[in-house]
Amino acid sequence: MRLTFTGRGRARDGGDPSRRRILAGAAGVAVAGPAAADTLADVPPRGPGAPLSSTSERSEYVHLSRIPESTPGRRPVDPSEAINSKAPLDRLVGTITPADLHYERSHAGVPDIDPARHRLLVHGMVKRDLVFTMEDIRAMPATSRVAFLECTGNGWENWKQAPPDVTVQNTHGLVSTNEWTGVPLRFLIDLVGADPGSTWMLAEGGDGSAVARSIPLTDEIIAEGMLAYGQNGEPLRPAHGFPLRLFLPGFEGNLNIKWLRRLKFGDRPFMTRWETARYTQLQANGAARQFQLRQEVNSVITSPSGMMQIRPGFNRLTGLAWSGFGRITRVEVSTDGARTWRDAAIAGPALPKAQARFQADWAWDGSPTKIVSRATDEAGNLQPDRASFIARTGTNALFHYNAQQTWAIDAGGNVRNVLA
Amino acid sequence: MRLTFTGRGRARDGGDPSRRRILAGAAGVAVAGPAAADTLADVPPRGPGAPLSSTSERSEYVHLSRIPESTPGRRPVDPSEAINSKAPLDRLVGTITPADLHYERSHAGVPDIDPARHRLLVHGMVKRDLVFTMEDIRAMPATSRVAFLECTGNGWENWKQAPPDVTVQNTHGLVSTNEWTGVPLRFLIDLVGADPGSTWMLAEGGDGSAVARSIPLTDEIIAEGMLAYGQNGEPLRPAHGFPLRLFLPGFEGNLNIKWLRRLKFGDRPFMTRWETARYTQLQANGAARQFQLRQEVNSVITSPSGMMQIRPGFNRLTGLAWSGFGRITRVEVSTDGARTWRDAAIAGPALPKAQARFQADWAWDGSPTKIVSRATDEAGNLQPDRASFIARTGTNALFHYNAQQTWAIDAGGNVRNVLA
Repeated sequence: MRLTFTGRGRARDGGDPSRRRILAGAAGVAVAGPAAADTLADVPPRGPGAPLSSTSERSEYVHLSRIPESTPGRRPVDPSEAINSKAPLDRLVGTITPADLHYERSHAGVPDIDPARHRLLVHGMVKRDLVFTMEDIRAMPATSRVAFLECTGNGWENWKQAPPDVTVQNTHGLVSTNEWTGVPLRFLIDLVGADPGSTWMLAEGGDGSAVARSIPLTDEIIAEGMLAYGQNGEPLRPAHGFPLRLFLPGFEGNLNIKWLRRLKFGDRPFMTRWETARYTQLQANGAARQFQLRQEVNSVITSPSGMMQIRPGFNRLTGLAWSGFGRITRVEVSTDGARTWRDAAIAGPALPKAQARFQADWAWDGSPTKIVSRATDEAGNLQPDRASFIARTGTNALFHYNAQQTWAIDAGGNVRNVLA
Repeated sequence: MRLTFTGRGRARDGGDPSRRRILAGAAGVAVAGPAAADTLADVPPRGPGAPLSSTSERSEYVHLSRIPESTPGRRPVDPSEAINSKAPLDRLVGTITPADLHYERSHAGVPDIDPARHRLLVHGMVKRDLVFTMEDIRAMPATSRVAFLECTGNGWENWKQAPPDVTVQNTHGLVSTNEWTGVPLRFLIDLVGADPGSTWMLAEGGDGSAVARSIPLTDEIIAEGMLAYGQNGEPLRPAHGFPLRLFLPGFEGNLNIKWLRRLKFGDRPFMTRWETARYTQLQANGAARQFQLRQEVNSVITSPSGMMQIRPGFNRLTGLAWSGFGRITRVEVSTDGARTWRDAAIAGPALPKAQARFQADWAWDGSPTKIVSRATDEAGNLQPDRASFIARTGTNALFHYNAQQTWAIDAGGNVRNVLA
């Protein structure tokens, strides 16, 4: 692995960082700058630490939280008005999102459900109506899978305009990746004896607004869908559907019904208000498109990103890529405003329908430029540039925005959101 | 998928659970028991939920915490005396351990380190001594990997005796699985220009006891080791080494030095007190074995497990299996005290050197019996029964206990820890 970067030493007086240039690689290393003695001098002495505890809390030096938002770009707001709470992608590493920081989206707030009293009714085109307790469901065979979940509204801030002073948490914070655990949908369908003629399934949530969506019973959804009761090894958190939610890898967030209380099998879509009014796409010609359900290939550079400041010399570019069509097979980055591209490295395995972490090294010469990434998935989909995306979709729609994200960098190293 | 289980309905008066027997499978379903109307009657009405928040907290109905312990089997204790804090394996699902519940083990408590002042010194048989800040380290290429970490003392409670009234948290709670993110050891070695003649690396922690271990620089450790600064997508938590720790997939926990502050390259082991006194193995013949570093193949049934009570009829058996040699390729379970065995299903992918979740269905006839699991890894290692394990190791040693775990079940369905 070869890399050129400017490391940063620290003078023993704790003053302005001095600089040393490190040219590294298999061939060896050459260094100039503070010596070991200088920079170890201000390392605090060691002493007895805090007692062990029943849970390991975060460091006082780590500040992680989501941004509750009611309108795109406006933050923070009164949480009681908020409809979104966005994951801090600019401060996360790897691919897993901590459960308490997984993005949150709701239509009537977060219900507080006693799992002992919760029920799941399964009816419609089935051999027998059944009602399940959580004890029933936890007794069924389970499966676990690491996959992303994304709100179909993720990125809409940039569809029509680009507020410059926003972070990647604002522009792309409605996507997260967890390990989800639950009962395979296939098992439940066999258990209730769903009619083979049943081609759609209504899923209804137990929240105040009873969000309900029609789920097409494709081979893919039957094979991959699950009734999830766990995330990242623990029970779902209330904001994410406790005690039970539907999880459909690769499909838009609102289909993954939280606080799941009812499944009804039928031979046509149920045409709930959520799919006739709320989650339809107004096309350029004024016609509304229904049931655009799969999340498209997408990517974003999370560092450097909006509101960060960089210095000339080495900068590590890193970000996340994901696709509802399967694995990410390639991520390219451009540091000259999409004129030239080069491959980024995928750090760690790229799991199907999970976020993949990419990175590339970049020596910035200090002149204003733009950085951008584009991902390709295993189905061969290439993330579109904004111009072709708008040419295809127009600007009437609100959902499924997956155009390339461009960050502009000025001579001072200030990173800002632009439309490319 | 075929399964026979006794689901449990609930009478509308909330009294004793009624029962229905469900025979399920691809063939269909036959049900007897409460009808939908009866069991939906006591589901609480829906209403507006709580506002969205900056973090998603756990449900008030979910109780998860570790057991701080100072001596095996004794719990809980004054945390200031604790040396272990064990993961609640009996209440976790899937394979990932929540970061705040990852098992904790320390020798001088948990230091509170300011990352801006932390330093990593790399010296010894290298071209140039170097000191790195956390800013330096975060600027380097990173990788992420899901892998287990296990205290070499995990399971020692059962080496010489079996306290009956303990949970699986007590017997096996010193193992966890996280996604770890950091700089590949290979990159650091190239960066500092380690001498090809350097075959060992001293790693020293920044805690009060300065735990230090000699790491053999095998191809495997150089290829898989990392300087980790992230777990499950967020910065390390102080209990797990914030801001920097060594992570060596498959090797005993104490080698994965937390609060990492120094790496020294050399051509022989450094013989710290941790490897001459603390972490050596007293063999049956009285001789001490040094540098038994790799965690062996292991597994345990987490449900039903110690202190649980089960009912006749269907019970889902589930548990975890892991090996420092790589992937788990097979898990077998016995419900007749290891007389007969059958394959359990692996739920989800079995990643190399990560915990795998297994499950099997079991119709308990209500008569006293013993349940036990045994795992096989891709290197062909089969988890030993306790008798052969003791025959090989004797009972003088304390570490690397990986014998099969047996749970006894009495006529009342009470599950207890026994030695098989």
